[in-house]
Amino acid sequence: MTRIVLGIEYDGSGFSGWQWQTHQRSVQQVLEQALSRVANHPVTVQCAGRTDTGVHALEQVVHFDAKTERELHAWMLGGNSNLPDDVRITWVKQAIGDFHARYSAIARFYRYVILNRPIKSALLRNQVTWHHNPLDADKMHLAAQHLIGKHDFSSFRAQGCQSKSPCREMYFIDVYREDDKVIIDISANAFLHHMVRNIAGVLIDIGAGKQPLNWTQELLEIKSRKLGGVTAPPDGLYLGAVYYPDHYGIVKHPVFDKLPADARRHD
Amino acid sequence: MTRIVLGIEYDGSGFSGWQWQTHQRSVQQVLEQALSRVANHPVTVQCAGRTDTGVHALEQVVHFDAKTERELHAWMLGGNSNLPDDVRITWVKQAIGDFHARYSAIARFYRYVILNRPIKSALLRNQVTWHHNPLDADKMHLAAQHLIGKHDFSSFRAQGCQSKSPCREMYFIDVYREDDKVIIDISANAFLHHMVRNIAGVLIDIGAGKQPLNWTQELLEIKSRKLGGVTAPPDGLYLGAVYYPDHYGIVKHPVFDKLPADARRHD
Repeated sequence: MTRIVLGIEYDGSGFSGWQWQTHQRSVQQVLEQALSRVANHPVTVQCAGRTDTGVHALEQVVHFDAKTERELHAWMLGGNSNLPDDVRITWVKQAIGDFHARYSAIARFYRYVILNRPIKSALLRNQVTWHHNPLDADKMHLAAQHLIGKHDFSSFRAQGCQSKSPCREMYFIDVYREDDKVIIDISANAFLHHMVRNIAGVLIDIGAGKQPLNWTQELLEIKSRKLGGVTAPPDGLYLGAVYYPDHYGIVKHPVFDKLPADARRHD
Repeated sequence: MTRIVLGIEYDGSGFSGWQWQTHQRSVQQVLEQALSRVANHPVTVQCAGRTDTGVHALEQVVHFDAKTERELHAWMLGGNSNLPDDVRITWVKQAIGDFHARYSAIARFYRYVILNRPIKSALLRNQVTWHHNPLDADKMHLAAQHLIGKHDFSSFRAQGCQSKSPCREMYFIDVYREDDKVIIDISANAFLHHMVRNIAGVLIDIGAGKQPLNWTQELLEIKSRKLGGVTAPPDGLYLGAVYYPDHYGIVKHPVFDKLPADARRHD
């Protein structure tokens, strides 16, 4: 038995999310089908972050246990040739030690992309969230800094969220403008259901001047989803990268250089 | 009769090009249908650059003559509400003087985007041209400089090209890398049929080391398409902007600051 680790990129717009569901097209399903063909036995994959319907991934990390011996490269080539073109395996490596895509992860990085201009995009139809009123990215960035650190994120959690604890540790949130896009880069140890989209919804209302700068802080203290903002659409959301302790040998995304020293203690 | 000028963005992957064709979906057709509804009379649009099947536009410029009086803004709002979501009108203005989208244009700017990494993109499936071997962007840039100026571009012209003259004036070509993308920014007074894609095909072969640095110069001198390179795919090609003399009041794309002084003599 060999544990294989893969980097996965996907366009979420054609999928009802990561997780396997009967009668729905999921990323897990097409990936397990493709890898099972290469393995010649049924394969179950574990992922670092289960994305919702319509949410994309620049670098999801998954692992699976193979009973058949294959050249490492064959998992990527064979997998890709059996995958639909909206999912790609971008790298492959053999797992070191007790590596687990979900449980070994120390931090997740998501990117939320808002197209901020008067007219919708003809070219990026499902890959950005469109907001036509001008957004103040600097104000959004300031407001977001209240969320850094360990907090009870109940106000930013979907009603059906099944996590035992509403507490998470937020490592960084950077909001900045690139031409007509406003980008939210956000990293925490883990995220509650809809947490990034609920934070994005709140920041958009602050950036549009509908809510004051300290609304993020107020919501944190209220600890109730009922008074929170709207859940921003999935279109602009990307799972960007996952961070593992150094000894697992998973290539590190440069964005994780911004993690606080405490989170990087395994390096 | 009022002449109206529009900026148009489109995703070319769902169209068999700009030009109206029976039984084919064209950008011209959906745009004329949408504007005819707003005008309440049949509308014919003229464009600055007729793009081929699969070629995109960040900013195509078109004009049409309206017999009905409408607020300027209504052409954009009404047009967009009648257009499919892969075409957007991004701005509108009233034509000044004898403005003609095609004949008044002094320069066209195209961008060709090559995704240069080992694996295809799941997210940009029809919007980049994929090349898996590493390309030397600096070498491509050097080779491209031979094409600057007035030349007979017969070696870079499609066999069916209907232009009377094979001569064009190339204003600038810049080839540069942005992470895993190699981008070709190219501007001339006008382009022959397939000219940008034929230049891109030649530069890709030079960047991949299959052809020498001076191949662009050799091809220029040969003046025959038969010895030219492959025509690069349309997926990575974007009509980026069109440049008009200042007195027409069309907003100028910053890329045109690079035009030689002679081309900017009407400013």
